[in-house]
Amino acid sequence: MAHVGVVGPSSADQRELDDAESLGQGLAQRGHVVVCGGLGGVMAAVSRGAAQSGGVVVGLLPGTDRSAANPHVTVTIPTGLGELRNALLVRSCDVVVSVGGSWGTLSEVALAVRTGVPVVALRGWPLPGDPAMHAVDSVGEALRTVDALVRTDD
Amino acid sequence: MAHVGVVGPSSADQRELDDAESLGQGLAQRGHVVVCGGLGGVMAAVSRGAAQSGGVVVGLLPGTDRSAANPHVTVTIPTGLGELRNALLVRSCDVVVSVGGSWGTLSEVALAVRTGVPVVALRGWPLPGDPAMHAVDSVGEALRTVDALVRTDD
Amino acid sequence: MAHVGVVGPSSADQRELDDAESLGQGLAQRGHVVVCGGLGGVMAAVSRGAAQSGGVVVGLLPGTDRSAANPHVTVTIPTGLGELRNALLVRSCDVVVSVGGSWGTLSEVALAVRTGVPVVALRGWPLPGDPAMHAVDSVGEALRTVDALVRTDD
Amino acid sequence: MAHVGVVGPSSADQRELDDAESLGQGLAQRGHVVVCGGLGGVMAAVSRGAAQSGGVVVGLLPGTDRSAANPHVTVTIPTGLGELRNALLVRSCDVVVSVGGSWGTLSEVALAVRTGVPVVALRGWPLPGDPAMHAVDSVGEALRTVDALVRTDD
Repeated sequence: MAHVGVVGPSSADQRELDDAESLGQGLAQRGHVVVCGGLGGVMAAVSRGAAQSGGVVVGLLPGTDRSAANPHVTVTIPTGLGELRNALLVRSCDVVVSVGGSWGTLSEVALAVRTGVPVVALRGWPLPGDPAMHAVDSVGEALRTVDALVRTDD
Repeated sequence: MAHVGVVGPSSADQRELDDAESLGQGLAQRGHVVVCGGLGGVMAAVSRGAAQSGGVVVGLLPGTDRSAANPHVTVTIPTGLGELRNALLVRSCDVVVSVGGSWGTLSEVALAVRTGVPVVALRGWPLPGDPAMHAVDSVGEALRTVDALVRTDD
Repeated sequence: MAHVGVVGPSSADQRELDDAESLGQGLAQRGHVVVCGGLGGVMAAVSRGAAQSGGVVVGLLPGTDRSAANPHVTVTIPTGLGELRNALLVRSCDVVVSVGGSWGTLSEVALAVRTGVPVVALRGWPLPGDPAMHAVDSVGEALRTVDALVRTDD
Repeated sequence: MAHVGVVGPSSADQRELDDAESLGQGLAQRGHVVVCGGLGGVMAAVSRGAAQSGGVVVGLLPGTDRSAANPHVTVTIPTGLGELRNALLVRSCDVVVSVGGSWGTLSEVALAVRTGVPVVALRGWPLPGDPAMHAVDSVGEALRTVDALVRTDD
C-alpha cells in the first residue's frame, strides 16, 4: 500500500479524463491511497475512479473552502496554500503520476524529480531525461510502472 | 459527516490517553474523519480509538518521514512544515477538540478561536472566555458538543 | 544584529501603539531587522518606528496582495499563508516581542515558547510560567531583555 | 521599486555565476529588493552583486537554520518549508529572473508562468512559449526586460 499522487490539468480533454478515471480505479484496486488536488478535470476523474473501486481519496485543495472539493473525495484538506499545495502534494506521495501537460503539472513534475519522488508521466510534455522520470503511453503501462516503483520502495 | 481535529500533547497522562481513545471511537462511530498530528501520546490514542471503530484517520506529520506516523493512521501527510502544520490542522477541521494542556495545544486552540473554528476543550488550561470556546469535563460531553456544533454547521 | 519579531493586534489601543512605535525605534537603533505581520495596528506602529530610525522592516503578509502592507515596511512577503504565516514569523525570529494580548498574539506566543524561541511579553495576557517567557512592563525593559537574549545567543 | 526574484542552481558554472552577480548589481542599482533562496551558487552570486551595490537581499532559506545563508543576504527567512519555499519565493516577487537550468529552477519557472508572475529566462532550458515567459541571452537584455515589465506593472 502506498500514497500515489495523480496530477493533471482541471481543463482536460476526454482522453485525459478517461485515463485519469481508469488510473483511479487501478490504484484503488491495489489498495493505494490516491492523493490529488481535489478539484475538477483530471482531479475529479481520478477521484471518481478511485471512489468507484472503494478507495480512499485525499483532496489537497488550494483554497480554504472545503465545499470546492469534487464529490468523490474521502478526505478534504482545504490547505489555503494556493500553489504551495502542489509541493505539499508531491511531498505527500511515494510516486506521482502525471496525466497530460500544463504549466501547473510541469511544476509538480519538476518538483518531484528535484526531490527524488519518482514520476510516471502519461503522455506529458517532452522533458529532459532523468532516472526518476518514467514516460509511459497507456494507463496499463502507468499502473505497471507504479507497481514496480512501489515494490522497489519496500 | 465532518472533519474533526483532535489535538493534545505527545507526553500525556493515562487519563488523557484514555479520553483520547474514547473520543476517537465516538467520532468514528459518528462517521467523522479524524484529523490529528499523526505522532504519539494523545495523537496515537485518538488514532487507535478511531481505527478500532473503522474510521478514517488523517495524520498531518510535522516532518517529511512517513514512517514516523503511528500505526493507526489511514492517511499520512508528511507535511514537512514543522509547527506550521498545527495551523494547517486547524484549517482542515470543522471542529477542534483539545485534550489536556501544553504550549503546542495552546497554540492550536488560540489559532482555532482566532480563525473562527469552534474548539471543544476537554480539561485544558484556563483561558479567557470566547463564544468559539467550549470547555467540557468528559468525553461524553465533548462528543455531545461536537454533535451540536456540527449540526449548526449544516 | 538579530531578527526580532514584534507581534500584536491590528486593533490596538493608544498605549499599545505608542509602545510598538518606541519598540521599533529601539530595535532599529540597535541594528536589528524587525519582522512583523506587515498590516495595521501594532504592526504598522512598530514598522513606523523602525523606519523612522532607518531600520529594515520585513512584513510577512497573510494574503497575496502586496499593496495590503503598511507603508513603512521595507520588504513585503505576501505569503498567502493566512494564519500559517504566524508560525513562519516565529520561525524567522531570534526573539519575539509581544505587545498586548489577543487570540492571534496568544497563538504566536504559545508557538514561540513551544519551539524554543524566547518571548518578551509586554503587558500580555497572563500565562503559565516558562523559562522562555519574559513578562515585562515597559518598552525600556523589553529592549533590555532583548539585548540580554541576543547576547546570550551569540 | 519592485521585488525581483532570482532563481538558479546551487551548482552553477562560471558563466552563470558571473551573470548572477551582474544581475544582482543591476537590480540593486535600480532600487529593487532582490529575493532569492539564500544559499550558494547562483543564489550567493546574485546576493553578492546586490550587496556590492548597496541593495537589500532577502534569502528565503529552505531549512530552519539561519546560519546556512550566504553572507551577502540582508534579511534571512529560515522558512523550514523545504521545496515549498520555491513557491513562496515566486509568490513574493513581481518578476522572476531565472539563470540557467535545473529541475528546481524549472519548477519555479513553471509555477511563475502558472500563477501569472512574469519570468525572464536567461539561457534556460527550452520550454513551450507563453506570454508570461521572456527568453533572453544576456544580463543587459534581462535587466531591460525587467525594466519594461516593472513599468507595465505600475
